[in-house]
Amino acid sequence: MPLDAIPIVAVHGDAPSAQAGLVPGALSGNAPALLREIAEHLRRLLAGAEPAAIDLRAMPLTPADLDWLRERLGSGEVNATLLADGESTIVETACPGVWWVTHRNDRDVVVAEFIEVTFLPELLKAHPEDVQFGLEHLELLISDLS
Amino acid sequence: MPLDAIPIVAVHGDAPSAQAGLVPGALSGNAPALLREIAEHLRRLLAGAEPAAIDLRAMPLTPADLDWLRERLGSGEVNATLLADGESTIVETACPGVWWVTHRNDRDVVVAEFIEVTFLPELLKAHPEDVQFGLEHLELLISDLS
Repeated sequence: MPLDAIPIVAVHGDAPSAQAGLVPGALSGNAPALLREIAEHLRRLLAGAEPAAIDLRAMPLTPADLDWLRERLGSGEVNATLLADGESTIVETACPGVWWVTHRNDRDVVVAEFIEVTFLPELLKAHPEDVQFGLEHLELLISDLS
Repeated sequence: MPLDAIPIVAVHGDAPSAQAGLVPGALSGNAPALLREIAEHLRRLLAGAEPAAIDLRAMPLTPADLDWLRERLGSGEVNATLLADGESTIVETACPGVWWVTHRNDRDVVVAEFIEVTFLPELLKAHPEDVQFGLEHLELLISDLS
C-alpha cells in the first residue's frame, strides 16, 4: 500500500532538528515533552480518539534525543516490515499502541520516521481495493487449474 | 497478546495429514480445493463477513501440498513476527488479505499453521487492555523524570 496512507493526524513542532543550538550528540531537553505527548495520545486513543502520528523529522530532536526516546519506549512483541518502493519497518514499542515507524527509500536511506499511536498501523492493513485485485488474480489462477 | 486471540472462524476438514493414503512427498490433490475455499472466504470478506482462519494442520495435506499452496499464493509486501512464548510469523501472500501464519513454541518447533483471510491479522493488533497497561507504565516513567 502507498506511503501516503500513513495516517498523520497530529504533528507537533515544525522546527527541524538542524536548527541553531542543537548539538547532535547531546540531549536537547525536548524528548521528555515528547514522551508526555505520546502518553496524552494514548489516553485519547483509549477514550476513542483517532490514531495519531508524530513526525520525528519535524521535531527539534538530536540523534541523542532519539536514542533516549527509543530506550525509554523499549521493545515490544511485534516487528514488521513492509517492502514497497523501499523498506518500512513498523516496530511495536514496549508500550502497546505506540509504534516506531521508519521508512527507507530504494537506496536504503531513511526518508521518514514517525511515532504512531494506534491499535494497528494502517500500513499493515490490507486495503479492500487491493484485496479485490488479489481475489481476481486468485480466480484467474484457479480457472487455469481446471 | 495470547495465541488464543487467533480468530478461528472457519475450519474445514478434520482429517489429519497423516491419514492413510497420503504420501508426504506427493500432491494429494486436496490443495486446489483449498485455493477455492480461500477465494470464497475473500469474496465473503469483501462482502462484509467476519475474517476466517483455516487450520492447515487439520487438513488432509502433504508437505508437497503445502509447498504447492505457498507457491501459488506467492509473497506479499508485509512480513511480521510476534515474539511471545515462541515466535509467530505473519506473512502476507501475494493475495492481499490472505496471510500465512505460523506459530512456533519456545523450542522453535512449529506448533500451528493457519491461513488467515482478513484485512488484518488480530495478532498484530494492540489490545485495549494492553494499551491501558502500557500507558500506566509510561506515566510511571514520566513521573520518575520530574
